[in-house]
Amino acid sequence: MSETATAFVPGHITGFFSPHPHEDPLRAGSRGAGLTLADGVETSVEPAPETSVSLNGRDTKIEPVVRVLDAFDASMRVRCETPLPIGAGFGVSGAAALGAVLAANDAVGLARSENELVGAAHAAEVESGTGLGDVVAQARGGVPIRVEPGAPGYGELDGVPAAGRIEYLALGELSTADVLAGDTSKLSEAGERALAGLRANPTLPELLARSRTFADEAGLLTDDLRDVLDAAESPASMAMLGETAFAIGDGLSEAGYDASVTRIHPGGATLNP
Amino acid sequence: MSETATAFVPGHITGFFSPHPHEDPLRAGSRGAGLTLADGVETSVEPAPETSVSLNGRDTKIEPVVRVLDAFDASMRVRCETPLPIGAGFGVSGAAALGAVLAANDAVGLARSENELVGAAHAAEVESGTGLGDVVAQARGGVPIRVEPGAPGYGELDGVPAAGRIEYLALGELSTADVLAGDTSKLSEAGERALAGLRANPTLPELLARSRTFADEAGLLTDDLRDVLDAAESPASMAMLGETAFAIGDGLSEAGYDASVTRIHPGGATLNP
Repeated sequence: MSETATAFVPGHITGFFSPHPHEDPLRAGSRGAGLTLADGVETSVEPAPETSVSLNGRDTKIEPVVRVLDAFDASMRVRCETPLPIGAGFGVSGAAALGAVLAANDAVGLARSENELVGAAHAAEVESGTGLGDVVAQARGGVPIRVEPGAPGYGELDGVPAAGRIEYLALGELSTADVLAGDTSKLSEAGERALAGLRANPTLPELLARSRTFADEAGLLTDDLRDVLDAAESPASMAMLGETAFAIGDGLSEAGYDASVTRIHPGGATLNP
Repeated sequence: MSETATAFVPGHITGFFSPHPHEDPLRAGSRGAGLTLADGVETSVEPAPETSVSLNGRDTKIEPVVRVLDAFDASMRVRCETPLPIGAGFGVSGAAALGAVLAANDAVGLARSENELVGAAHAAEVESGTGLGDVVAQARGGVPIRVEPGAPGYGELDGVPAAGRIEYLALGELSTADVLAGDTSKLSEAGERALAGLRANPTLPELLARSRTFADEAGLLTDDLRDVLDAAESPASMAMLGETAFAIGDGLSEAGYDASVTRIHPGGATLNP
């Protein structure tokens, strides 16, 4: 029981979504679409008397990580490293939970399948109120479309075939829990419209256009963020949920912003060799 | 209409399977499990008056490639490059079909989703009689378990969480069509037993052990192949369907064989940036 293991989970930006709460966390989730990113979270675990978590070297609390390890009676020292900003819409908490349970499965021989591990991480994220769709998207990789909400066996995924450079610029944080605690009916309707449009024309430009319309209709854009999106030299929108702009190609740097550069991640979450 | 595009599709070795024919090629397929490999097929396309295919620089016929492009009224010059041996159980025909349609979708703007493209490549492979489960496995990556047969929307996939080095040694070819044309009842029963065992303990050693038992029970092992598997220094089995040995880690080279070295591929089929 002293083996360590490491997993990589891509970051995930949601472009648009509709929340689908359910009392069973495996059936709860969201419909929508987004991008997984090569900038992600690398999570290492080693067995320990009780679970503790560090993020980029600092001790912290990430509730979904503790919950998902508790679900398998595993206690671990968990170390997460990421270049992504926290609380800014990149799915870091979901990535940490999924990475921790993938690594723990390997380190202590839980002998669970990928669907079981993804389902457990999804449920932990839903129960923590930190996300609704990041985990299943991060397990898949690419440009995931969440056609039906929920964990493997309940939800349904498709994807936009696409690759290439993505830029992002985080201006500030937004609380997923706060947004979801408000009236989400307008947001849901906008999300369903965006999804129908993308499914009729599953291309990256369509995803960005639908995301931008959603951001306007959902009423979540700040003035600062709107300025960035209007200035962008390529299709750009807002990460749900963070005060964060993202763009295809080099549209933010070309507009003079000091944006981070990453790529669409070709694969999903994986154990490191 | 002069744009070119390239896609990468991992190789796929099936360890055990049961065939599930159906008159609808989207519902036909196989249950089983195997490994996707970093050694795969890189497929480039460019629009052309009629479809033609080359493999490692030589003109050839790969029926599923022609079929899948015909399904979208696309005619292409298709160039496939691969280090994998042909007809030896690595899913090269399925990889070429999936790569061609992913690349064609990008090159001529078909605007289809990943599930649509994977389904079309799966159907083309089934209708050509060249495979039953490679395409859906190659679209997923990792160590796919085909829980239910068929294309996206019909089939169901899970995975064994695993990574690391794989070795393989091809001794000769086996015809998928010939094997499937024979009496497959014994093979099916052995495949279903293997799948139940793996799902109860979804680990890489279990996959190899179940595959080895399946190879014996299915009666497909040649004497030469049995000698290699018996000599291997790590868990090893036979690629379905080829006269090919594969092993975890360095079990073939340690036994003195001049084996090829690759890895479990972390992701599925992808468009190149």
